[in-house]
Amino acid sequence: MKKIISIIIFGLFGYVSFSQNKLSDTFNLMPWPQEITKSNTTFKIDEKLTIFINGKDATERVNKSSVQFLRRLANKTGVFIDEGFPTKNKNASIEINFHSVSNLTTESDESYSLNIDDNKITINAKTDVGAIRGLETLLQLVNFNKKGYYFEGVSITDFPRFVWRGLMIDVARHFQPVAVIKRNLDAMASVKLNVFHWHLTDDQGFRVESKVFPRLQEVATDGLFYTQEQIKDVVKYASNLGIRVVPEFDVPGHASAILAAYPELGSKEGYEYSVERFSGVFHPTLNPAKEVTYLFLETLFTEIAPLFPDEYFHIGGDENEGKHWDENIEIQEFKKKHNLNTNHDLQTFFNIKLEKILKKLGKKLMGWDEILTPSTPTTAVIHSWRGKQEGLKQSTLIEAAKKGYQTVLSNGYYIDRVQSVEKHYNVDPIGNTVLTKEERKRILGAEATMWSELVTPLTIDSRIWPRTAAIAERFWSNKKVNDVNNMQKRLKVVTFQLEELGITHLKNKDVILRNISNSQDIHALKTLTNICEPLKIYSRNKGGTEYKTFSPFTLFADACTPDATDAKAFNKAVVSFLANKSKENQTKLIAFFDLWINNHTKFQKINNNPKTDVLEPLSSNLALLSSILKTGLISGKLSTNNYKKVLKLINKLEKPIADTELVITSKLKKLLVNYKK
Amino acid sequence: MKKIISIIIFGLFGYVSFSQNKLSDTFNLMPWPQEITKSNTTFKIDEKLTIFINGKDATERVNKSSVQFLRRLANKTGVFIDEGFPTKNKNASIEINFHSVSNLTTESDESYSLNIDDNKITINAKTDVGAIRGLETLLQLVNFNKKGYYFEGVSITDFPRFVWRGLMIDVARHFQPVAVIKRNLDAMASVKLNVFHWHLTDDQGFRVESKVFPRLQEVATDGLFYTQEQIKDVVKYASNLGIRVVPEFDVPGHASAILAAYPELGSKEGYEYSVERFSGVFHPTLNPAKEVTYLFLETLFTEIAPLFPDEYFHIGGDENEGKHWDENIEIQEFKKKHNLNTNHDLQTFFNIKLEKILKKLGKKLMGWDEILTPSTPTTAVIHSWRGKQEGLKQSTLIEAAKKGYQTVLSNGYYIDRVQSVEKHYNVDPIGNTVLTKEERKRILGAEATMWSELVTPLTIDSRIWPRTAAIAERFWSNKKVNDVNNMQKRLKVVTFQLEELGITHLKNKDVILRNISNSQDIHALKTLTNICEPLKIYSRNKGGTEYKTFSPFTLFADACTPDATDAKAFNKAVVSFLANKSKENQTKLIAFFDLWINNHTKFQKINNNPKTDVLEPLSSNLALLSSILKTGLISGKLSTNNYKKVLKLINKLEKPIADTELVITSKLKKLLVNYKK
Repeated sequence: MKKIISIIIFGLFGYVSFSQNKLSDTFNLMPWPQEITKSNTTFKIDEKLTIFINGKDATERVNKSSVQFLRRLANKTGVFIDEGFPTKNKNASIEINFHSVSNLTTESDESYSLNIDDNKITINAKTDVGAIRGLETLLQLVNFNKKGYYFEGVSITDFPRFVWRGLMIDVARHFQPVAVIKRNLDAMASVKLNVFHWHLTDDQGFRVESKVFPRLQEVATDGLFYTQEQIKDVVKYASNLGIRVVPEFDVPGHASAILAAYPELGSKEGYEYSVERFSGVFHPTLNPAKEVTYLFLETLFTEIAPLFPDEYFHIGGDENEGKHWDENIEIQEFKKKHNLNTNHDLQTFFNIKLEKILKKLGKKLMGWDEILTPSTPTTAVIHSWRGKQEGLKQSTLIEAAKKGYQTVLSNGYYIDRVQSVEKHYNVDPIGNTVLTKEERKRILGAEATMWSELVTPLTIDSRIWPRTAAIAERFWSNKKVNDVNNMQKRLKVVTFQLEELGITHLKNKDVILRNISNSQDIHALKTLTNICEPLKIYSRNKGGTEYKTFSPFTLFADACTPDATDAKAFNKAVVSFLANKSKENQTKLIAFFDLWINNHTKFQKINNNPKTDVLEPLSSNLALLSSILKTGLISGKLSTNNYKKVLKLINKLEKPIADTELVITSKLKKLLVNYKK
Repeated sequence: MKKIISIIIFGLFGYVSFSQNKLSDTFNLMPWPQEITKSNTTFKIDEKLTIFINGKDATERVNKSSVQFLRRLANKTGVFIDEGFPTKNKNASIEINFHSVSNLTTESDESYSLNIDDNKITINAKTDVGAIRGLETLLQLVNFNKKGYYFEGVSITDFPRFVWRGLMIDVARHFQPVAVIKRNLDAMASVKLNVFHWHLTDDQGFRVESKVFPRLQEVATDGLFYTQEQIKDVVKYASNLGIRVVPEFDVPGHASAILAAYPELGSKEGYEYSVERFSGVFHPTLNPAKEVTYLFLETLFTEIAPLFPDEYFHIGGDENEGKHWDENIEIQEFKKKHNLNTNHDLQTFFNIKLEKILKKLGKKLMGWDEILTPSTPTTAVIHSWRGKQEGLKQSTLIEAAKKGYQTVLSNGYYIDRVQSVEKHYNVDPIGNTVLTKEERKRILGAEATMWSELVTPLTIDSRIWPRTAAIAERFWSNKKVNDVNNMQKRLKVVTFQLEELGITHLKNKDVILRNISNSQDIHALKTLTNICEPLKIYSRNKGGTEYKTFSPFTLFADACTPDATDAKAFNKAVVSFLANKSKENQTKLIAFFDLWINNHTKFQKINNNPKTDVLEPLSSNLALLSSILKTGLISGKLSTNNYKKVLKLINKLEKPIADTELVITSKLKKLLVNYKK
């Protein structure tokens, strides 16, 4: 029996450690490719570098990506590349071969191979999209020494694990201008995401120009919406990056904005509909018992669907509590007449009508997993978002696939919960579930979701990135690629590559801190942001009523991010020290304590305003605690009095401060327990 | 005689010191208002703050600016203002009164008065544009203490000195996306600039969509151009900020891009026209002897002029050397036939034709001052750009005004020369010239010009701002407002206000340094950027052939800016020390030397690549020199050997390094001379 167990254990560990390619210690590719081997050569990047595109048709997609590749390479390396555009000369240093132009569907091929020799780089792909995926990999292989920049010599064969690798951005709660969307599309392409799910409407705004229903803009947008020209521009931009755009028009719930413009479509007679300024789940709901509701939606979708060439069309369908339905006698009679027992049945009735409207427009209906009821046709696509947090045993992904639905997973990838990258990286869409080939095929993939209640154009990038790069790896790479430490090592490099692409997650931290301090020295505040994280899982803005859509998001919590760097390092240092009280491990801890002691001196030099004043207890308590613990570490003992003092300070510091939490308190406690007599 | 001189001198100094309002020591308004008095109250900013707009018609302009005002105020102060939009309640804390909606011409009124009491703020203006100018002033009066934020209590009466206060942005040499233009329009409005001169075409690109001549986009843009929808959007955006948009289509020279698309309009038969990749003055020129040229321009302008509601239409007309005209026999015959002796005469012939075309379209022709010839009709507007640098005795501004032309000055405001803010601030458009009332009226105002040969969207803001805020003051404020030190004190605050508006001049420095260092610690590099400035007056990219349009602008020189902060402080410290060798003044110098000595230790920790390696001599020589001079300062003497050593090091450091100059070398020499026996 014992023998069997050790074989199993060995098998498990062997599986993990053998699975991750050793080269991931050397190279910083993300997502990690399916197959990679190293050669002993490198390719020197100099001014003579050229690109030749050998495609059946020279496509805009590969052409634009090649031009961008040359710009990004020049900007990164400082090399003055002679030829700024792809050459007609077949004897180029980089040769790109592909056979066909992708039509960007869930069936499209994205595979490629990349070979780097000392004098030639070749990318081979079936489609143009595969080719541009290869170009992104190539850019991640740039390295340097004192003499110059070069590409690492490797051979790669690569293809995605899932065909649907998405990022959803909510532009309703806080509008995000075209420039924000475009830079995020660039970043998505750089980590091989291929679906941009555009959450365009919600209680707080209807963000698409309608020429048929102009009140949608006049009343339901505060002037913040995309013109149809802008939508076309974004869709084209995404297509050139090999990214499909799936629009979402959330109905019948989340409809406050629509109903502010057209109250006659509402379920509650005489209700004062208005654009919502708070966050949460609200009652305004379209009336499914009125024929005019379907006429409105058919007319609207007929106008808007052609802007989005993709086959999938998301109708939301989530979080409808049906309160206004219950209060409406006509709707109750309608339910009886149509034998609809529950509001769920009524919503399914509504969805089936929508499904027919969309079918006429050549679209597949997709919806959040509340649409999954026994009578929902299997042509619908189930977007699985709920899980344990929402009272389910597990996500609906597997259930939907087994019942015959195409399905996409977002449970586990809610990046607006501001949790650690590790948390999301460890979620595998399928895990060890055994599926038939057909069932597996119906699991299209997964999507990270960026709900925007608490983010603005200033902060949204820091909520999406760099975590979404690691999530993208989960969607693209082999499931065996799962070493968290290795991922974090590579992510440190990728995060700067994202900045080079225009992502603002790093630079806007300083902008917020300069604002908070009224342009005084920000070093003290920055040190604090490196150990504090925004309150997680919606505990910031509890109940959705603390912040309005136009409240300031230029506060300390907005400068903080998940995965606070110093906190991670300190927590690790505590673990090391408790395992081995070596001088070296002690020194590491003392360095942190010195940092926080000195930091408070700097903090005190700031002329405080209410935004910085609220941080004073954090800064001073931390300094005091650091000073006692430092003395304790050096002397190897702590008086009972000091022990109690520190415990009291930790207890204080455990409470939320300016909508953030100090994420070193549990490790501080562990360190303190060390002195417990 | 002596007595008279001292009276004059006293008069001059008295004039300067009495002229500048003492309140400019306290408040950081820019541009400084015409009249201001201080009251003893302040207005507390809290969540109850509201705005009431009392206009003849509630205009989009004041409404949008008020909403933005509320957003900016909330973001700046962190106050959760209850009402996110202007209220209907007349009892609001801020009341805005105006009489009419401005039609945005050179005759439009922009005056306003602002009164801040402890419980009421009132803005009165003749026009809606005056009202929004007042809102910008109000935002600059925000101050804080530990208890909270407040507006300073003042009374202001304000109006502009010049009706034309412009910023030109060249989007041809390096294309600037709509987002770049919009954030710069926001910044312009914040310092009360009111003309955006959009240099849309040049040898390197034709940046406007033409539906009549699609080859202009297909051939002459590399895909980088504004759609007509985008142009309309920008013009509307500018109008809401009270900013006129004057487009420039540069002809007959600077025409390489147009001729690449339509070579049949060129002056040289069989010439291989192509989009230019270098900078400079090139030969491709429209053919003024062909009727089809005028047909083309009339058709193009007829299509494009309606996009720009402004009366003024800039046709460039600069730097046509006429080489291709001289080489074309038909053009020579055409000149003879029409009695045109010189190429200047021929160009005037061309301009007169254009003037008629534009008149039909309701437009006034404006051009760079080469268009000023004896036969140029006085309906033309002269844009004065040349001066001593271009071989003239002085700018053409006064000459043009005296000859009966409306005129605008840019000579002295060429911000792409990367000179100090002081230099531009000290240029007064009129100076002490005596003008008749009519002549004075013809001097419309002035424009800063941002030519984009050496700037990209990453760096353009740092080349425009903050210097242009000081230039804006020169255009708006009384000419007596001319205290450079006081301006620099206020500019330090304004530069952060520009960041709050979205200007990227501060944050992108770190982005470039992270790129240069491949995301290593950037502190050492940053210290160097604080004493180095980009080579000035076109000595970077000499002859225009070092950089192509697609060369990297992510280098050390791009991270550096004019008015390097530490250099200014060090140079001042040297002057103080040489005047008074006090311990205090010595300490200041030693602090700098210590900074640079330690900095080299940090610098050496960077894993160098060619972009950082080129800075090694700068860092090491500076450290060595600092170390010797520090010892010399402390001991009060320098050996002959060390004297020679330092001199040699300074001579080395005087040479350009990575397209920058170390701007402390002349003061280092002065310090060294101090030791000369």
